Amino acid sequence: MKTKVERAEFYRLTGVVLDLAVEAHDLLRGATRQEVPGVREDKEKYANATVTTITIFNAAGAQAMGKPQGTYITIDAPALRYENPPVHEEIASLLAQKLGVLLQKWQIGPSDPVLVVGLGNWEATPDSLGPKVVNQFTVTRHLLKFAPQNLPPGTRPVSALAPGVLGTTGIETAEILRGVVEKTRPRILIAIDALAAGDLGRIGSSIQITDTGINPGSGVGNKRTGINIETMGIPVIAIGIPTVVHAGVIIYEVLNQLQQAFPGTNINLDQIMAQNLARNVLAPFGGNLTVTPKEIDDLVHNLAWVIGNALNRTLHNTLLQAGAAVPLH
Amino acid sequence: MKTKVERAEFYRLTGVVLDLAVEAHDLLRGATRQEVPGVREDKEKYANATVTTITIFNAAGAQAMGKPQGTYITIDAPALRYENPPVHEEIASLLAQKLGVLLQKWQIGPSDPVLVVGLGNWEATPDSLGPKVVNQFTVTRHLLKFAPQNLPPGTRPVSALAPGVLGTTGIETAEILRGVVEKTRPRILIAIDALAAGDLGRIGSSIQITDTGINPGSGVGNKRTGINIETMGIPVIAIGIPTVVHAGVIIYEVLNQLQQAFPGTNINLDQIMAQNLARNVLAPFGGNLTVTPKEIDDLVHNLAWVIGNALNRTLHNTLLQAGAAVPLH
Amino acid sequence: MKTKVERAEFYRLTGVVLDLAVEAHDLLRGATRQEVPGVREDKEKYANATVTTITIFNAAGAQAMGKPQGTYITIDAPALRYENPPVHEEIASLLAQKLGVLLQKWQIGPSDPVLVVGLGNWEATPDSLGPKVVNQFTVTRHLLKFAPQNLPPGTRPVSALAPGVLGTTGIETAEILRGVVEKTRPRILIAIDALAAGDLGRIGSSIQITDTGINPGSGVGNKRTGINIETMGIPVIAIGIPTVVHAGVIIYEVLNQLQQAFPGTNINLDQIMAQNLARNVLAPFGGNLTVTPKEIDDLVHNLAWVIGNALNRTLHNTLLQAGAAVPLH
Amino acid sequence: MKTKVERAEFYRLTGVVLDLAVEAHDLLRGATRQEVPGVREDKEKYANATVTTITIFNAAGAQAMGKPQGTYITIDAPALRYENPPVHEEIASLLAQKLGVLLQKWQIGPSDPVLVVGLGNWEATPDSLGPKVVNQFTVTRHLLKFAPQNLPPGTRPVSALAPGVLGTTGIETAEILRGVVEKTRPRILIAIDALAAGDLGRIGSSIQITDTGINPGSGVGNKRTGINIETMGIPVIAIGIPTVVHAGVIIYEVLNQLQQAFPGTNINLDQIMAQNLARNVLAPFGGNLTVTPKEIDDLVHNLAWVIGNALNRTLHNTLLQAGAAVPLH
Repeated sequence: MKTKVERAEFYRLTGVVLDLAVEAHDLLRGATRQEVPGVREDKEKYANATVTTITIFNAAGAQAMGKPQGTYITIDAPALRYENPPVHEEIASLLAQKLGVLLQKWQIGPSDPVLVVGLGNWEATPDSLGPKVVNQFTVTRHLLKFAPQNLPPGTRPVSALAPGVLGTTGIETAEILRGVVEKTRPRILIAIDALAAGDLGRIGSSIQITDTGINPGSGVGNKRTGINIETMGIPVIAIGIPTVVHAGVIIYEVLNQLQQAFPGTNINLDQIMAQNLARNVLAPFGGNLTVTPKEIDDLVHNLAWVIGNALNRTLHNTLLQAGAAVPLH
Repeated sequence: MKTKVERAEFYRLTGVVLDLAVEAHDLLRGATRQEVPGVREDKEKYANATVTTITIFNAAGAQAMGKPQGTYITIDAPALRYENPPVHEEIASLLAQKLGVLLQKWQIGPSDPVLVVGLGNWEATPDSLGPKVVNQFTVTRHLLKFAPQNLPPGTRPVSALAPGVLGTTGIETAEILRGVVEKTRPRILIAIDALAAGDLGRIGSSIQITDTGINPGSGVGNKRTGINIETMGIPVIAIGIPTVVHAGVIIYEVLNQLQQAFPGTNINLDQIMAQNLARNVLAPFGGNLTVTPKEIDDLVHNLAWVIGNALNRTLHNTLLQAGAAVPLH
Repeated sequence: MKTKVERAEFYRLTGVVLDLAVEAHDLLRGATRQEVPGVREDKEKYANATVTTITIFNAAGAQAMGKPQGTYITIDAPALRYENPPVHEEIASLLAQKLGVLLQKWQIGPSDPVLVVGLGNWEATPDSLGPKVVNQFTVTRHLLKFAPQNLPPGTRPVSALAPGVLGTTGIETAEILRGVVEKTRPRILIAIDALAAGDLGRIGSSIQITDTGINPGSGVGNKRTGINIETMGIPVIAIGIPTVVHAGVIIYEVLNQLQQAFPGTNINLDQIMAQNLARNVLAPFGGNLTVTPKEIDDLVHNLAWVIGNALNRTLHNTLLQAGAAVPLH
Repeated sequence: MKTKVERAEFYRLTGVVLDLAVEAHDLLRGATRQEVPGVREDKEKYANATVTTITIFNAAGAQAMGKPQGTYITIDAPALRYENPPVHEEIASLLAQKLGVLLQKWQIGPSDPVLVVGLGNWEATPDSLGPKVVNQFTVTRHLLKFAPQNLPPGTRPVSALAPGVLGTTGIETAEILRGVVEKTRPRILIAIDALAAGDLGRIGSSIQITDTGINPGSGVGNKRTGINIETMGIPVIAIGIPTVVHAGVIIYEVLNQLQQAFPGTNINLDQIMAQNLARNVLAPFGGNLTVTPKEIDDLVHNLAWVIGNALNRTLHNTLLQAGAAVPLH
């Protein structure tokens, strides 16, 4: 079976977006692992994780990758998919460290105000990661405003918001956040979001941290306007974890397996045909179909804890070192 | 037993706020039912409800009532506290009609954009009324923007937001809403909120609709800045239902009962003493203590349905008459 | 492209189960629509729904269908996928009527005790239909026991349970229910469950009511022991609505589309190969992967309301006719 | 002011139950701290907690205390009411140790099967502690049954259930549990429940562990049949944390404060009068009124984590020492 359609092309035609830069990079480099001009990839090994840092350092790289210039750090930690609290804490510590690197890159000091945003839909399990994280770390902005005497000097003002999704609010998330940023003046925004991967094996086990924010077409759902330095006026760090795979990925995977099994067969599946095939299969619900494992609720529960723990470590270093007991809201 | 402290004074001293204008009015009029200058009260009887409309029509009335000038409509419907869907639908229809009266007063046309805000804390049952309502009516703003052809002409753009509470966001709700109003430009804001009553019997059975918005000290929680025409720049209708009673109300009730039981006894409970007594009893948790019935979860579930149903009737009249099937988000 | 593997065979090999008897029947009848011995299909048309009743009336039919003898009523109502309360109420009424037919078949009288069970996982949106229904209808068993004077004579004792899933309880649902049935002695059990369809178009719009209960392999998840008259000792009616499609269905759909597009091509995809292909594609998470639309949260919200409304109509006819106001719990 | 009614008597008359043995003991000993025959109290001091162990060792003690013979360990740890993860972990470790003592007392070995039950109502925040704990620890019974090879030898079978409350199920919790115990044969049952305290200051900061189970009248709600060795046929350990105070406690506190402020005054408040007073004040909702602080959602969130962490430490010692990674459900 011969198909004239490449994976990259197929994904483009069927609306499959790879939220992870590391996957987009692999796709671009292809089987021959050719270098992509304007893009650098570095790897580090840890006991329970591999960290891959993709740097897109010029416009050519951004154009090729279909992603803005900036840093994309991916922590691959399959242990996240098992009940293993001590290892989860280790990964949270590594995430905190990488988050710290990006804060430093943007010269965010230890007392600079930060707004954390939990994107996604509370009611749909795979999309609920962001809102769930919002309950997992310490918010201090109001305490500093109304009762500063209870906190050690230098405590960072941290605020948080779970703005909901377009389908339930009728408002683009960027519109809501732009208003909040103008009124509350954080120095940086950290957005948490569930991502769509191109590989089922990455669900619940890869964490991407990027300083390019959330950009059109990323993630699960209809986020038409980006949430980034251009739209927000302040730098935006996005922390994302894949919780689904677009159904189109499964389709390409089938074509791919057939190609490998019947290499010589004379099927000429061109772009138009592949696109039609995907359209026919995914017609219902406007093709907005995702594949997700049964245990997604436990995955999201654990991942929210890991991200919340990492946020506390990075954002509230002063507070933690002071051993301060923060009152509940 | 003689006490020199009046209920109104006791409430003031112990931080008890009466969110319902009808209760504040009763308190003011006292046993002699004297008229309050600048305030008018009208009553209507319905099969399953009594409607009391308080109008505060001048500054003197506002000063006396401790509430802004405007209209306060209270629907008292004890049937809300029983499982009785047909009667709940009747009450929803009555609420829709009264809401329509206030929209008309502010000259809001049938196609004018409306933002509905669910105030309160999703995670705390008695305070979750607002966020729960947000899932109970139809949001159209995004559909009109991205797919207007699916909707009948004249469909009103309705958006919705559950912004969370100061304790979990670190941001005053008014700050969040002011930004969203500026970015999305609704003509009016409808805020849904759980209220605190001065009478346990009103929990879950009185609905207040007012065009004065949410004002400092109202409701459960720390809402320091008001959500009203002054802070939002557009009229604000607030729909509220009592779900709790401040613990201070119970204390006064006990003093009151003692007074009635031992009218001649020589106890001189002055203001300072009464305040100290309340402070001693309510010391823990900063006095932020509320009394709520066990079945509050069922009450809130049913009340959210009633308000959502009323919102659809009032805001989507065009849509409902066209029998239009609105796609899910 | 020629494949030697039939859809039925492919599903069997890859663990795809069709929960809807109407789909299993279609699959069996194939393109030629041949009759299946021991199985009868009847159709009725309604304004907003089509009802298909499959009756498996002997062992041969059961063997062929892979489902127990009994009645399988499917209401197909695409309107369930749109916001349209009046039509949803119509469908609830139709569901109530069909449920009544099955109660009559098993000679369940209007005052006979009924246990309603919401199967599935509260925390995973597509699997949360059952638990959500449990909050949507009136439970009376305890009222009849502790305060019968508040209810009209003849009120049916209805109890409800959401027992959770094997993954969170460590206990097979059938074990839990068997114990509860023994202790509380209902005359019939009604189980609500989310189903897996073989067609994306059926998600959220087909309702199956059967008096054969829940049988091994049905539904989303690991339900190893059936919940039926054999295991429970009382008749079991199951009400199910598809909320997902197994990922294997997508794979076969792709093969099918290729077959149609390239009918003459010489690909001999035999059973082993097809199975390997599916295994390779679906390797992660043990193949336990489902496809679901983005708006699944709204679908489940509406479907739970429809089923709850139907349960009240069928089970509490006496109560509703008496116009009785049932106290909240 | 003189009142002829003692606190103990007033509580009895107004239906206030003290779930904590330590409070019941204090009440019994009164101001003079007299010894109660048949009851022993021991105290231990820890860095962040005080542990009080009440042992009721004969029938006279049980009669006097109104509680069954057995051990009641109370950990008082005010730090639970602040955000302070390291200290919360310390308290979890202490709870685990005390739980271990009771398991040993009943000769439960490290591989003996345990059923953990989360009592209470998921939908009502102060009553949701039990159901929330059910998601916070590792369940293994099904893994040992279906995939034992993935677990180290000696892993304990742990199962879990959140059976709901009488008001939503129509079934007494004891009926449900009795059936489950018969079918699944655990050696011991651990029940988690939200309690009612007699002191606002104990909300969210006292943990009681007892091997006498849950007994009539305890806790928030209508639990008429006990959950104990008599009704279950196996020992029952109950872990409870106060999340509310009955409104009657507030009433007595007011009377008490008045008495102290006006010691000589001639008010003769006898039993009948006090009871009438409480009845008048608490008439609505059948007196089923509780007082709870605003931050109860955060309290319950943190407490569920502490109990879940302690359960894992005690029940899964073998698993944790093996560093085994348990698959998610």
